[in-house]
Amino acid sequence: MDGIRVIACDIFGTTVDWYTGVAEQVGSLIEVDGTAFATEWRRKYVPSMDRVRNGERDWAYLDTLHRESLDELLDQHQLDPAEETRQKLVRVWHRLPAWPDSTSGLRRLREHYTLAALSNGGFALLTALVKHADLPFDCILSAELARAYKPDPSVYLTAAGLLDVEPHEVLMVAAHGWDLDGARDAGLRTAFLERPAEKGPHHAADRAADVAADFSVSSFDQLAEVLNPG
Amino acid sequence: MDGIRVIACDIFGTTVDWYTGVAEQVGSLIEVDGTAFATEWRRKYVPSMDRVRNGERDWAYLDTLHRESLDELLDQHQLDPAEETRQKLVRVWHRLPAWPDSTSGLRRLREHYTLAALSNGGFALLTALVKHADLPFDCILSAELARAYKPDPSVYLTAAGLLDVEPHEVLMVAAHGWDLDGARDAGLRTAFLERPAEKGPHHAADRAADVAADFSVSSFDQLAEVLNPG
Repeated sequence: MDGIRVIACDIFGTTVDWYTGVAEQVGSLIEVDGTAFATEWRRKYVPSMDRVRNGERDWAYLDTLHRESLDELLDQHQLDPAEETRQKLVRVWHRLPAWPDSTSGLRRLREHYTLAALSNGGFALLTALVKHADLPFDCILSAELARAYKPDPSVYLTAAGLLDVEPHEVLMVAAHGWDLDGARDAGLRTAFLERPAEKGPHHAADRAADVAADFSVSSFDQLAEVLNPG
Repeated sequence: MDGIRVIACDIFGTTVDWYTGVAEQVGSLIEVDGTAFATEWRRKYVPSMDRVRNGERDWAYLDTLHRESLDELLDQHQLDPAEETRQKLVRVWHRLPAWPDSTSGLRRLREHYTLAALSNGGFALLTALVKHADLPFDCILSAELARAYKPDPSVYLTAAGLLDVEPHEVLMVAAHGWDLDGARDAGLRTAFLERPAEKGPHHAADRAADVAADFSVSSFDQLAEVLNPG
């Protein structure tokens, strides 16, 4: 596929393993089953952003949405940790492990393309996450820069505009069909990166058979091979 | 100095050697004395941004300002290169050599701080420049994100806001007194990085004796030593 100049990568689930990272850190901060808590917390993610996207509430950073859904969850679990612990809990999303193929695959892609992180995480969150995991991105492009959330087209179009390329020159890589649907609607190309373990052993992740995309791969290394054969 | 979390680095002149880079590339594209042309072109830089800052004209990307001042200069030199060459000339600012100490010093600073590029160059320009010179920044923070130019306070405050820190937690590093004056007015800390050769052998650069700053150093390596003794 010709003409791709920028590869924009979703982060949570696609590039880093939020399930393991959140579960382990939560389990070390409060007395709770970390994996179940991580799952419940993440389940509130899309609905909380939808309230911003639908205009039900004003723009709010992902950290704020994470904090609100955390407080709800703690109430449901009848837990009442100190304010400092709550702040630490919000920041577990700033420090998550990369999938094993992410660094090597991204490094190969970066030789041929401009490589951007494009997530609904805030700019500060993403900068911290990418720094901690030492991921070789050329730039951070948060949805925050559009003050909107994916799959709102403005997020994808703001990314293309800031990098001074046409939307069709951007390949969006994500493990979620809804993200790729939004990218396609905005005129981007799409690559589905299947992450069967994204939601842990008890919950189904999006699978290749069910997602429409220009490419479908199971690792960043495979994406590098598919885009640059030989 | 306690409490610094982010180091924001000016780029043209501070981190990369625009004089040598522009002169060499210009000399290879058109029949002209590259060093003189680079000097004349750069001399139009601050006045062209001032017209945006003063409201004389709407926001325009640095590439646009560079193109306008290029066309003026070519007229003055009675040169009329093809459109393609003019576009190549504008893009010489996207590809400039780092000063010899930049990569090593930035790498050391990055171990302890979040390291941001903060320049009046556009986001795409800076991303290309940092990628080409392989500079180890954690993120790109262009003045474009504030749709204003340094020394407008909104540029510095937008940078701090995106990284979710207070202005006084940001150290601005620049080789130009006017940039540090703007940073200080916005509440940032300041480090002057003296680059005597910035404007080539025939034109004076800003010197330490004339610039007020919290720190004054002559290389990024020295800045790393000063901030992290031992």
